[in-house]
Amino acid sequence: MARQIRFNAFQMNTAGHQSPGLWRHPRDSSHRYTDPQHWIELAQLLERGLFDAVFLADVLGVYDVYKQSHATALARGVQVPLNDPLALVPLMAGVTEHLGFGVTAALTYEHPYTFARRLSTLDHLTQGRIGWNIVTGYLDSAARNLGQQRQLAHDERYDLADEYLEVVYKLWEKSWEDGAVLRDKASGIYTDPARVHPIGHEGRYYSVPGIHLSEPSPQRTPFLYQAGSSPRGNAFAGRHAEAAFVSGPGKGVVKGYVDKLRAATADAGRDPGALLVYGQALIITGESSEQARERHAEYLEHVDVEAALALLSGWTGVDFSRLPLDATIDYIESDAGRSALASFTTADPGRQWTVRDAARFIGLGGRGPVLTGAASEVADQLEDWLDSTGINGFNLAFAVAHESMRDVVDYIVPELQRRGRYPTSYTPGTLRHKLAGRGPRLAASHPATQVVIPSHFSEEAL
Amino acid sequence: MARQIRFNAFQMNTAGHQSPGLWRHPRDSSHRYTDPQHWIELAQLLERGLFDAVFLADVLGVYDVYKQSHATALARGVQVPLNDPLALVPLMAGVTEHLGFGVTAALTYEHPYTFARRLSTLDHLTQGRIGWNIVTGYLDSAARNLGQQRQLAHDERYDLADEYLEVVYKLWEKSWEDGAVLRDKASGIYTDPARVHPIGHEGRYYSVPGIHLSEPSPQRTPFLYQAGSSPRGNAFAGRHAEAAFVSGPGKGVVKGYVDKLRAATADAGRDPGALLVYGQALIITGESSEQARERHAEYLEHVDVEAALALLSGWTGVDFSRLPLDATIDYIESDAGRSALASFTTADPGRQWTVRDAARFIGLGGRGPVLTGAASEVADQLEDWLDSTGINGFNLAFAVAHESMRDVVDYIVPELQRRGRYPTSYTPGTLRHKLAGRGPRLAASHPATQVVIPSHFSEEAL
Repeated sequence: MARQIRFNAFQMNTAGHQSPGLWRHPRDSSHRYTDPQHWIELAQLLERGLFDAVFLADVLGVYDVYKQSHATALARGVQVPLNDPLALVPLMAGVTEHLGFGVTAALTYEHPYTFARRLSTLDHLTQGRIGWNIVTGYLDSAARNLGQQRQLAHDERYDLADEYLEVVYKLWEKSWEDGAVLRDKASGIYTDPARVHPIGHEGRYYSVPGIHLSEPSPQRTPFLYQAGSSPRGNAFAGRHAEAAFVSGPGKGVVKGYVDKLRAATADAGRDPGALLVYGQALIITGESSEQARERHAEYLEHVDVEAALALLSGWTGVDFSRLPLDATIDYIESDAGRSALASFTTADPGRQWTVRDAARFIGLGGRGPVLTGAASEVADQLEDWLDSTGINGFNLAFAVAHESMRDVVDYIVPELQRRGRYPTSYTPGTLRHKLAGRGPRLAASHPATQVVIPSHFSEEAL
Repeated sequence: MARQIRFNAFQMNTAGHQSPGLWRHPRDSSHRYTDPQHWIELAQLLERGLFDAVFLADVLGVYDVYKQSHATALARGVQVPLNDPLALVPLMAGVTEHLGFGVTAALTYEHPYTFARRLSTLDHLTQGRIGWNIVTGYLDSAARNLGQQRQLAHDERYDLADEYLEVVYKLWEKSWEDGAVLRDKASGIYTDPARVHPIGHEGRYYSVPGIHLSEPSPQRTPFLYQAGSSPRGNAFAGRHAEAAFVSGPGKGVVKGYVDKLRAATADAGRDPGALLVYGQALIITGESSEQARERHAEYLEHVDVEAALALLSGWTGVDFSRLPLDATIDYIESDAGRSALASFTTADPGRQWTVRDAARFIGLGGRGPVLTGAASEVADQLEDWLDSTGINGFNLAFAVAHESMRDVVDYIVPELQRRGRYPTSYTPGTLRHKLAGRGPRLAASHPATQVVIPSHFSEEAL
């Protein structure tokens, strides 16, 4: 049987997101991001379309590599102004029953003790629908504002990440035993103190002696997402992630990412087939092939090349303002810049890609492919992408809020359902039930459930 | 004209709160605190009763002074398990239009750069209904879990608090000029970079060079609450607070707090009459005087003296397990313990107060008075408290969730309205409009609007 296709919505608590300049489109409403109604409408739309989850990206800084200034990001509306993603979750959860929430939280930026409680609280309030996209942070501008001269070196960030996860896993998985909370009005015992354990964590970066403040939530550890593609990031994902996000302009690049992720999962002793991988994509569709193509042309007119370059510069660390727009790969001196541009050629290997081409490419939907056409044409492409890259579904960016998502729900979902390649109802239960097919807790083989807390410490405290 | 009486609801994201043991009452539903519906019902109830706000208390630790252990707090359900208060705000805001939200956030526990964005986001999503209860943190157990050996010395905490506020004020008030956000689809300019300023903060505790990530929210700086009663805490409140919470068992104690707060406000060059002060109280009422008294007796039966002592020990730092329950003030050696017990005598000066008396007192509604009777009797007491202490309203604790609040809304609010001492509709606008009578921004005399950011820094960055 052909594999089912999964949809995830890629969003951010800002105007625009992965389609720089598209906020200028007359029908775009993404500037309404400060209005709760904007998110309520989106949540209801996505649940109607049986989306797995809405994934809320975040950065804790400004894109300031381009021209060594934040001026372009501000002027062109490149992911700034930008609000906290976590606050959107209770709001959208309040008007939905099944939709999951993947929230990006960079773990160098909040202490694990407070963060663990924040996520436990959201898992309680969403009744088990919270996921966490583990990010180690990639903008120097964020690190500086948190009092660090610059962010930690790449590998040290992953060391810190490993310890951070150890702390939150201890809090989520080991501090409170199942059944510790009795709520027994007759005996007057709310919690059995013998079944609540201080975690006694003393590490290189963190010291957390005490108990978790939250009682166990439906999933305990939130459903775990990861998006890294560096070797160390891959190993990290292989060890921890239940789902991963990848983005690349062509199938070859994406298949490479997927293969590496699954290999890293196997290396970590976990079932590589159990890792869900979502590939980033933008779908442009409509009532007909013609309408879809008109929309594509219309959207393309609203791409802001300079905004796209500010985004690309932030992602790669290369200041693309120093290159002519018609520079090809041979012209680019930095390795990161060449590698950034080279990845685009996989979308169309016959072409000599210029900086302008790359900017226009990411101008619609970011680094993922743009799949344009009537529902049947797009469905063909989705099936092809899924079957030839090994991904499990798509992390769908939008061009125009919420038109892009509405078109997917109205046209693509029914077409895929007709083909038997899309769910016709939600799986009951937590996000983990829905995505991993089992739950609500992590498998016993996952490192989260294998952390150990000192038992003598627990006894002493009583 | 007699002054209006204001109501505020005193809550916490936990089972029980200020009435230790009352979670055991058969009609109490506070163990439903992890269920979003519990909070939705409360929000709708409070808005029906024209409450100013729901005030969400928080501690980031466990009460572990009593018997030098957290066992009693866990077993007796003393403010543990305890979830994040912030997550409740978008949920309750989604089902109300006017109700305000006062959230406690201890400022030694999160970096001001991330915290400022969190509160700006909530001010956006609530459309200007967010307030912040500035707390410097008082539990050692919280400090330890954040990697500090113990919390900072009292006075140093206030130094850090002053700098913390300086940072968040700069971010909220000075980083983005009014009108900086153009959202101009025609010109393609989202934000005018010349009107967004890096704050360039370099202080003793924090270094925050960059811009605020959020655009100005309706109130910019959230409505500011404070609850400290130490001399340094008073000075802090006098300088910063727009509203203050006080709690004391008798009118004399409360009047003393109010007078000191207003004096501190005057000392800081602000209008002492403009400071709103809410006094903590528990109202027990019903259809008749008899029903109210029955409820009082019934509630009192469910007070858990040991739980109350765990709470009192945490508040005062004195381990009350070392004292016999019938110990009077003369028996107590520690200054803090004597002073704690002495404050209760103001509720009934003719009595020799014992430790047990104090525990039973705080067992119903914490350190505030219990006002029992039919609506007219309670209204008399409320008027008397208001007029003789100088408070502006009451921060109402509950005994039984949500019965206590429902009784206030159903019986007390209409009685006070008949007397012309309670609003009959909400003032339109933000929380600041509703509470300060003007808004949405802080007055030009407030220190938040007087912070200065280096202008050369702003220019350089462009």
